[in-house]
Amino acid sequence: MIKKKIINDPIYGFVTVPDGIIYQLIEHPYFQRLRRIQQLGISYLVYPGAIHTRFQHALGAMHLMQNAIETLRSKGIEITDQESESVKIAILLHDVGHGPFSHILEHSIVDGVSHEDLSELLMESLNKHFKGKLTQAIQIFRNQYKKKFLHQLVSSQLDVDRLDYLTRDTFFTGVSEGVIGYDRIIKMLTVANGNLVVEAKGIYSIEKFIIARRLMYWQVYLHKTVLAGMELLVNILRRAKELAGQGVELFCTPAFHEFLYNHHTKKDFAKDGRLLETFAQLDDYDVLSSIKVWVNHKDPILSTLSKWLINRQLYKIVINNKPFPASQLKTLQEEAIDKYKIAKKDVKYFVCSDEVTNDAYSIQDVRINILFPNGKIMDFAKASDNLNATALNTVTRKYFVCYPKSITN
Amino acid sequence: MIKKKIINDPIYGFVTVPDGIIYQLIEHPYFQRLRRIQQLGISYLVYPGAIHTRFQHALGAMHLMQNAIETLRSKGIEITDQESESVKIAILLHDVGHGPFSHILEHSIVDGVSHEDLSELLMESLNKHFKGKLTQAIQIFRNQYKKKFLHQLVSSQLDVDRLDYLTRDTFFTGVSEGVIGYDRIIKMLTVANGNLVVEAKGIYSIEKFIIARRLMYWQVYLHKTVLAGMELLVNILRRAKELAGQGVELFCTPAFHEFLYNHHTKKDFAKDGRLLETFAQLDDYDVLSSIKVWVNHKDPILSTLSKWLINRQLYKIVINNKPFPASQLKTLQEEAIDKYKIAKKDVKYFVCSDEVTNDAYSIQDVRINILFPNGKIMDFAKASDNLNATALNTVTRKYFVCYPKSITN
Amino acid sequence: MIKKKIINDPIYGFVTVPDGIIYQLIEHPYFQRLRRIQQLGISYLVYPGAIHTRFQHALGAMHLMQNAIETLRSKGIEITDQESESVKIAILLHDVGHGPFSHILEHSIVDGVSHEDLSELLMESLNKHFKGKLTQAIQIFRNQYKKKFLHQLVSSQLDVDRLDYLTRDTFFTGVSEGVIGYDRIIKMLTVANGNLVVEAKGIYSIEKFIIARRLMYWQVYLHKTVLAGMELLVNILRRAKELAGQGVELFCTPAFHEFLYNHHTKKDFAKDGRLLETFAQLDDYDVLSSIKVWVNHKDPILSTLSKWLINRQLYKIVINNKPFPASQLKTLQEEAIDKYKIAKKDVKYFVCSDEVTNDAYSIQDVRINILFPNGKIMDFAKASDNLNATALNTVTRKYFVCYPKSITN
Amino acid sequence: MIKKKIINDPIYGFVTVPDGIIYQLIEHPYFQRLRRIQQLGISYLVYPGAIHTRFQHALGAMHLMQNAIETLRSKGIEITDQESESVKIAILLHDVGHGPFSHILEHSIVDGVSHEDLSELLMESLNKHFKGKLTQAIQIFRNQYKKKFLHQLVSSQLDVDRLDYLTRDTFFTGVSEGVIGYDRIIKMLTVANGNLVVEAKGIYSIEKFIIARRLMYWQVYLHKTVLAGMELLVNILRRAKELAGQGVELFCTPAFHEFLYNHHTKKDFAKDGRLLETFAQLDDYDVLSSIKVWVNHKDPILSTLSKWLINRQLYKIVINNKPFPASQLKTLQEEAIDKYKIAKKDVKYFVCSDEVTNDAYSIQDVRINILFPNGKIMDFAKASDNLNATALNTVTRKYFVCYPKSITN
Repeated sequence: MIKKKIINDPIYGFVTVPDGIIYQLIEHPYFQRLRRIQQLGISYLVYPGAIHTRFQHALGAMHLMQNAIETLRSKGIEITDQESESVKIAILLHDVGHGPFSHILEHSIVDGVSHEDLSELLMESLNKHFKGKLTQAIQIFRNQYKKKFLHQLVSSQLDVDRLDYLTRDTFFTGVSEGVIGYDRIIKMLTVANGNLVVEAKGIYSIEKFIIARRLMYWQVYLHKTVLAGMELLVNILRRAKELAGQGVELFCTPAFHEFLYNHHTKKDFAKDGRLLETFAQLDDYDVLSSIKVWVNHKDPILSTLSKWLINRQLYKIVINNKPFPASQLKTLQEEAIDKYKIAKKDVKYFVCSDEVTNDAYSIQDVRINILFPNGKIMDFAKASDNLNATALNTVTRKYFVCYPKSITN
Repeated sequence: MIKKKIINDPIYGFVTVPDGIIYQLIEHPYFQRLRRIQQLGISYLVYPGAIHTRFQHALGAMHLMQNAIETLRSKGIEITDQESESVKIAILLHDVGHGPFSHILEHSIVDGVSHEDLSELLMESLNKHFKGKLTQAIQIFRNQYKKKFLHQLVSSQLDVDRLDYLTRDTFFTGVSEGVIGYDRIIKMLTVANGNLVVEAKGIYSIEKFIIARRLMYWQVYLHKTVLAGMELLVNILRRAKELAGQGVELFCTPAFHEFLYNHHTKKDFAKDGRLLETFAQLDDYDVLSSIKVWVNHKDPILSTLSKWLINRQLYKIVINNKPFPASQLKTLQEEAIDKYKIAKKDVKYFVCSDEVTNDAYSIQDVRINILFPNGKIMDFAKASDNLNATALNTVTRKYFVCYPKSITN
Repeated sequence: MIKKKIINDPIYGFVTVPDGIIYQLIEHPYFQRLRRIQQLGISYLVYPGAIHTRFQHALGAMHLMQNAIETLRSKGIEITDQESESVKIAILLHDVGHGPFSHILEHSIVDGVSHEDLSELLMESLNKHFKGKLTQAIQIFRNQYKKKFLHQLVSSQLDVDRLDYLTRDTFFTGVSEGVIGYDRIIKMLTVANGNLVVEAKGIYSIEKFIIARRLMYWQVYLHKTVLAGMELLVNILRRAKELAGQGVELFCTPAFHEFLYNHHTKKDFAKDGRLLETFAQLDDYDVLSSIKVWVNHKDPILSTLSKWLINRQLYKIVINNKPFPASQLKTLQEEAIDKYKIAKKDVKYFVCSDEVTNDAYSIQDVRINILFPNGKIMDFAKASDNLNATALNTVTRKYFVCYPKSITN
Repeated sequence: MIKKKIINDPIYGFVTVPDGIIYQLIEHPYFQRLRRIQQLGISYLVYPGAIHTRFQHALGAMHLMQNAIETLRSKGIEITDQESESVKIAILLHDVGHGPFSHILEHSIVDGVSHEDLSELLMESLNKHFKGKLTQAIQIFRNQYKKKFLHQLVSSQLDVDRLDYLTRDTFFTGVSEGVIGYDRIIKMLTVANGNLVVEAKGIYSIEKFIIARRLMYWQVYLHKTVLAGMELLVNILRRAKELAGQGVELFCTPAFHEFLYNHHTKKDFAKDGRLLETFAQLDDYDVLSSIKVWVNHKDPILSTLSKWLINRQLYKIVINNKPFPASQLKTLQEEAIDKYKIAKKDVKYFVCSDEVTNDAYSIQDVRINILFPNGKIMDFAKASDNLNATALNTVTRKYFVCYPKSITN
């Protein structure tokens, strides 16, 4: 009897896990760690349901990959069993290098080392452990494999990663407008000239997908309250790292200690296997349990910011289409210095400004290509009669400033 | 105890029907007739699930109206109990004048009399029957009532009619990409300067709504196979009417007979109350049961077309962005004449061409207005940073030609 | 390229139709007719959404059969490609012999000939047409094929027919409590000793399925208002047939005429191929369009009953756990005779009583068998620790009486 | 303008939070803490999606309470605005005293003090803080308020607590069979003789609710792998507490330290306000982040068990309908002692057995009462014609034994 593990998923019903290497990878501590890292960081401060994990996302993306493989094979595209396994491994592990609160951490604790770098390092480590069984998966992940469409399924502007995360983030936030027709899109995929393309009758589903993604950016990923929360968290971690640099004692787990009290470059990871192992122990629990304790730390800046985060007393945030004039920022900074009795150099922890951008569809990236019945292939931006090139090319940029709620504006 | 009738709805769970005039209107034969008229005509030839009726849609739209009223009242907008009842009546009856296969019939059987005309006539008839209780509802329907926003809830580019039909058509076709955030949009509605407006934070939901509507046009309402089916049905009815004009006997119900064998203008309806009564007996069952019998009619054109419809052997259809050259049409016509041994004047029943248009958002119509926190009101086409004016203004136009499957192209 | 047709289904997303004989069967007029027969007869009088058709159900059941085949194969059960096709044909056509308003018609128009008989006759006719390609499917349908589990997938207490119709009826009525875990149940299916069995860990899903089915009986199929509607429809058709027997002229389609004005036995169908062909033209549209015309028939009984149905002025119905005393019935009958000025022999059309039963799980039928990890197989009624044998064996019986609303009780 | 906060909920769409005391309670750190406590403890080890929090559940239950109030009021039951607010506060805070991994903690860390006790203590503390505004809510919570049905809405066999948690747990686990008709049940609620009752036509929904709850117990709450995980977690915490008692140093947060290194009784909480405050800082993050560090603790028992939990190498578990014979347990224990080189007294950390029970409907508790149209009220267990008293009264009891996977059985 062929054994298959079945996992309940609230979105797809059941996800089937094949026996063998894929099952073993899921059982591995590196992958189990993803159970303890939320997909959307602190978006749950706005959307209480958005607490799904990278573990669920990785399984879901693998499920969609399985569907995509079936569709392509049914259209006569050759995908060997070995390639099928490899491309599923590649998608399963594509986010394995994410740390807690991912991008936030990249900007504060492990800066200079991206999660893609770490994913690759962890995949290589697993490849050693599993005696080369991931070699082809790593080639696909790095776009070094001959069948380019396999890499495009893992990473492109229309990969199963996006199909799953949009579907999943929509489901758990309850923002129903983000719904995309992931199953229709997958059924419309095919391969032409070795590249992944979409059959022309799927073009409206692609439009819908582009718009839905853009909507999710403004409504969820870059929601103003989420931005305020992220800024607060970044500032907490930066302050903690600053204090650590001064030798101040901070409550934290040993794994977190390693990254708070030291600066590690990509090279360090490559050199020292134990460092990667330590990183693989870090998750949301290390960070949040520490911040909870820092609420009572003797440093007033750290304790104030930590308290705000834990009790959800976030910054006030103002968003604008233009940069904020320096004078306005200065006023806010002066008020904050006065109110919180802080040094001028520390006002950055209380008043901060930044910008965010949102490009629905990037013309820099590999395009989404549409295949017409007559065999012609056209860039989606040209093929769409609604979302014209001009509209799609425009990158929307917004500017924001955060400051304490107690300050009048 | 206040009695309320509760009706199960697969989309909203339950629809509550208030006692009194609204309940009585629903029980009236004019409204019960809507149970026998499908919302999407013959779209079920492509989407087997799309067999929902105008009865369900009218109840659903009334349900959303109830939600909209609650939202507006919670924001301090005054809506009296009388107005609340009237606006609910207006939406309940907004489609009561639809005949079977609606627009198709308008183009073949009762041409010259629109379903809006008939809705008004039926409302007036009901108003007599219910002794003036619909007077205010009719004022709202005709946009003659002082509170303009009430009419806009019934009929505008963002009315509850559209919110329900998009949601419902998506649900029953299974085209999940058409999903809109109807509840979010309703929660974002408010009134400014007496007009219905949308709070600025709802802007992405509106974008999504516009795109979803456009997608539903191409994917469902104007799906190529649906177009082919509609052309076939129009041709059947035109042929039947032509034969009736020649005194040929056709199996049909008495009510259908009235409209097949006579030509009635809007004036005739106004003059003769019994004509309206006869119209109110007409539904999908009259038309389809007759066509089923016509399959065996001695007129070869009528029987051929009828057989094609009943057994779903639709025309082949080709769609293009440009009009088809006359020469191409001529070739097809000649082949049809040859193949079916028909007179030249009858080739229109076998080969036909037409155009369809799709405007996501009309700048001719009353605009969707966005209310910003600073009190400024802006047309959606200007407020959106994604769907820019140019893209929105463009009306997409497509051309198609239909011809029998047996003809080679 | 392997071609597959994809059909949107609001429940399963997409149903894939394989090319070849299955596609051709779906295109055949016998099967297309199912588009015009509603699955739940007149239940839509209570649940406006319940207007889904036997066409959708048959496709849905075929989809679940495909899933069941994949599950069984993945557990090492041998199913050849030929068997897979045949069992899909068998489920696709299992209901092809249903007439309009199915069971109602069996009790009025074509009494003595069951829809199962007609399904078999139609399958045989199709088998001739398709030159023997349905032979194995018919063997499976008749339980004459060696692999008994294939028949059990088509017809047993846990067949894909029930899995689809419960899921579908729940979906379209909006009675969410009827939801069953069809996908989980299918994943738990396996074969032991040649029979279909359920793995022990699926036992709670089976309990749920049994209870859900029972709930749907009371809440939908035997809902009191549905019963009242069915009685009314049966009485209309019986009256029409009585009048037809007396040579009274009745508006009806030719196909409907054949069955109203003649009595046909099973033998007649076997003898006369054209009779089967005529039956295959009959659907909901023939019946309802005729009843609409009968509203104005000169027979007061026929016209009264028809008017009640079309305008949804159903009988009042009272349900009881015990039979109604004769005296009570007599009183109602006398009131009806008096009120409607009818002959004593015709009172049956106005006052009628009957009984309905509901057995959640039948111990007479082939049981649902549970397979335990130790290899033991046990009847579900014994294996369940909740729904004990006594509770399951009990057939619930209810008695009802119907009479006109205008009569006081 | 009346301000209301709207929160997205993946299940109900939107939850509306009224301004005033309810909004302030949600903002309070006691309530925000519930964001960091998962509703289903470690069930996510089986159902990866089951990571929803007590925060979401409390908001959802408040939402259903709002619906229940509207239904009851529409049936003429008097509920004052003050009572409406109070009963919403009571349900909002009914679980505020839950600690991390709730019942597990009650059996290991704070034994002797139930979460109900702690909820009451926290409510009283909040009542002081908010100057008596919770007095009526506390009366309702304690069933000391004159209108008994208000307490029954908060806590009975058919309270909104159960309606929300069954719906929510079903949604997030993806176990679709657990779906209940919460909206139908709520619409069927009314009050008779001062008590909450269900209208007779809702009886099948109640049956379904009882069966669904029972199914969720076996399939989720007492799923064998979940039981194995809970036993493992209990043993880890017991071992940690044992070590703490011996003065061994353990990494933990200050709040966790308080409860690991001390034994506190209910009296202690009453006496010392700071203790309650410390408890209110404890959540899942304290516990899991500590266990992650204990993986490397020098005590081999603590580190082994911790490693098993973090990497999901749970005990093997065997379930039986009868207690396991002592001899079998002894064999397992001896194998464990031998394999892990542990003292005899410590074998309980490796081999443990216990029992679980599941009563669908308790006849000890306050019954669910059914109101018949004739005014008669009957206990559900008698009114149901399917789930007879015998079946319902039976408490199902199962026995299980857990032991390391490496031990052969």
